[in-house]
Amino acid sequence: MTLLHIIYLVAITAEAMSGAIMGMRRGMDLFGICMLGTVTALGGGTARDVLLGHYPIGWIAHPEYLGFTVGAAIVTALVARHMHHLRQVFLLVDGLGLVAFTVIGCGVAMDMGAHLSIVVLAGVITGVFGGLLRDILCNRVPMVLRRELYATVALFTGVLYVTLLWLGIDTSIASLATLCAGFLFRVLAMTFQWQLPHFQERDIRGLD
Amino acid sequence: MTLLHIIYLVAITAEAMSGAIMGMRRGMDLFGICMLGTVTALGGGTARDVLLGHYPIGWIAHPEYLGFTVGAAIVTALVARHMHHLRQVFLLVDGLGLVAFTVIGCGVAMDMGAHLSIVVLAGVITGVFGGLLRDILCNRVPMVLRRELYATVALFTGVLYVTLLWLGIDTSIASLATLCAGFLFRVLAMTFQWQLPHFQERDIRGLD
Amino acid sequence: MTLLHIIYLVAITAEAMSGAIMGMRRGMDLFGICMLGTVTALGGGTARDVLLGHYPIGWIAHPEYLGFTVGAAIVTALVARHMHHLRQVFLLVDGLGLVAFTVIGCGVAMDMGAHLSIVVLAGVITGVFGGLLRDILCNRVPMVLRRELYATVALFTGVLYVTLLWLGIDTSIASLATLCAGFLFRVLAMTFQWQLPHFQERDIRGLD
Repeated sequence: MTLLHIIYLVAITAEAMSGAIMGMRRGMDLFGICMLGTVTALGGGTARDVLLGHYPIGWIAHPEYLGFTVGAAIVTALVARHMHHLRQVFLLVDGLGLVAFTVIGCGVAMDMGAHLSIVVLAGVITGVFGGLLRDILCNRVPMVLRRELYATVALFTGVLYVTLLWLGIDTSIASLATLCAGFLFRVLAMTFQWQLPHFQERDIRGLD
Repeated sequence: MTLLHIIYLVAITAEAMSGAIMGMRRGMDLFGICMLGTVTALGGGTARDVLLGHYPIGWIAHPEYLGFTVGAAIVTALVARHMHHLRQVFLLVDGLGLVAFTVIGCGVAMDMGAHLSIVVLAGVITGVFGGLLRDILCNRVPMVLRRELYATVALFTGVLYVTLLWLGIDTSIASLATLCAGFLFRVLAMTFQWQLPHFQERDIRGLD
Repeated sequence: MTLLHIIYLVAITAEAMSGAIMGMRRGMDLFGICMLGTVTALGGGTARDVLLGHYPIGWIAHPEYLGFTVGAAIVTALVARHMHHLRQVFLLVDGLGLVAFTVIGCGVAMDMGAHLSIVVLAGVITGVFGGLLRDILCNRVPMVLRRELYATVALFTGVLYVTLLWLGIDTSIASLATLCAGFLFRVLAMTFQWQLPHFQERDIRGLD
């Protein structure tokens, strides 16, 4: 049981809780809350596995992951009213999860011998697609496409991880260094509200 | 041609008609109506097959299914104005379809040697994803996440079916018993408007 | 490098630009714009490959395609304000892309020995799913389900292509003839605003 695996289990639990909270906000019933939590937590890895043709996909090979996400969603539904002081903790665990998901996603694509650009992309997809699918199920434009350095953190994490491995650095060391650097980047991005450039209506008048 | 197969063909026809009606409500053109009907009818099995890596997926191995769904959608578009007295019939066939889809989905995963929890989940996905994808295409929060004992009926059906088979009961008898019990559960849920618990805004103030 | 391949590269570039413009309209950031452009350009082929179980999917076997789409999206974000006089050009290239995507999609399914109805459908999916996924990410009912002879052009293109090959006509000649006929159909449909039948509320009162 590696550190990365432990972080992964903590991360899918936290992602499932945040998905469950959004489901509650949308007035979903208990099934919807469990499903939204599970999609948020496992959707990124699922999208990656389906796109790479990497079967069996993660939660089918490890059904116990579903136990974590459904359990987390149910607990959240029951105790949510007492959780509002945990917002900061959620954001931090979510950031850690983003980085861990990305590193794990890169590893899966690398083991399949994919091109380095695909390895990085597989990491980004693993990191951000859970939230993207959650937002689609909640009928809103995915947050990750609109603001915050979130996908960018995943991209930075993937590029750094691939670079370190390419430099011949030991996998476990590269993973740890990438986790720390990516997490730091995410925390700084949240603290200082860094954003990618947006574009004004005047940039595109007359188009589309 | 088993009873289950006959029920399946009746069910995808009815699902395609209900999907077509929703497409008409959304002002879709004839192509949109045919596609929405087909997605509603075959989307659940498609999602299951893609997630399980079960190729070729159902309607590619049996293109005739597309004939049923597209034909049903076109007929619906033409005669919809005369169908409003069939609403009750639709709800009953839809309920029967939900249960049949679930039993069939469990069977597919079981034949692949999946873990029992995945067998049940494959049944639920087969039962509910058609309507979920239909609602996403119609740009609304999927009904199945919000209310009615619909997914719950699929879950009950899957658990019952797996349990009966686990007890060593003959497949055809287990299928028939599960179809009857699941359908009865669905009818009762509709009749008495049973619902899963929802959660109030006060439960989650300050969160997300 | 066949003519079809050159048209394909031009088409994914144009589709990526149109997707990027829609992302700008939705106030997406640079990542969102790149991703929406890529999904618009490559989403159709991706959906086809996943549904057919045709691995590795196109852009994983040819990562350079991602270079075209991401590059096109970034350029669009930078120069969009100077592009509003190119609207007509976009519509024409988009129409050419629709036809090229469809022909390519039919070819992939045919090489896999799929049933002719699946070959045609694979072409239609390749042609229209990029825009469909783009619209879902933009949280709106997919345009292709609502109006314009767009999917119909893909259907016509696929049927014509399959028919010509079935008649024993050489592939390259059949491709060229289909490209010309399909493109002409699309241009005429746009020029004269041909539409498929829609249905009025009165057709469906009391239903759904």
